[in-house]
Amino acid sequence: MHKSQLAGLIIDCQDADLDKAAAFWSAALGFEAVSDPRSDESKYRRLETPPGDLEIEVQKVDHPSRVHVDIETDDIEAEVARLTQLGAKTISKVHSWVVMEAPTGQRFCIIKPCRANFEQSANSWS
Amino acid sequence: MHKSQLAGLIIDCQDADLDKAAAFWSAALGFEAVSDPRSDESKYRRLETPPGDLEIEVQKVDHPSRVHVDIETDDIEAEVARLTQLGAKTISKVHSWVVMEAPTGQRFCIIKPCRANFEQSANSWS
Repeated sequence: MHKSQLAGLIIDCQDADLDKAAAFWSAALGFEAVSDPRSDESKYRRLETPPGDLEIEVQKVDHPSRVHVDIETDDIEAEVARLTQLGAKTISKVHSWVVMEAPTGQRFCIIKPCRANFEQSANSWS
Repeated sequence: MHKSQLAGLIIDCQDADLDKAAAFWSAALGFEAVSDPRSDESKYRRLETPPGDLEIEVQKVDHPSRVHVDIETDDIEAEVARLTQLGAKTISKVHSWVVMEAPTGQRFCIIKPCRANFEQSANSWS
């Protein structure tokens, strides 16, 4: 048995000035933009959502700008297998996460748990 | 003075079989997919997120698949003006909402309030 849940959304900004990009999204959505010591400060700014809410990060990328969702799990291999059975395919492995593509065409990532409520609210899959 | 907040995310699926698309995202994220009487059943399925959480909808579209965010507001004109000042531009008006594009390239929509916690938790802008 393993667990997973929607972790949040990542706002991918192509070739962005990261602080300017984060400033726009911070002001647009009304969340403070902060550097996150858990991630690479040259690529990420976290938007401070209320505790328990979805995580939102602004990321500097070199592919076209988009928004993608992250799914967090305590067993990445088992979660990738579960999503593969549902019709998703694996695109690449980057650091500790796996990039997948939905049968409907959107890319998303499978990551380690990051939300504070993971233990209480994630779905259990057997 | 007007108010706005992040309403949720829309999973846009190009030329999709809507029920199949909703079934994938329902299983992937662990939320039940339902028809929403507030919206066009030929185009939308709502994923039932916990009360107070962000709204998530799967939408059948004819543009390339993507994920976009919605911002809800009690004054669409004032919110569009605020976001224009921040650097976003208006792409189109569709029914009661406005499609905008961020300076970082992502499209997003400005819509009427839909989350139950709008009055208590939306940001106030003067």
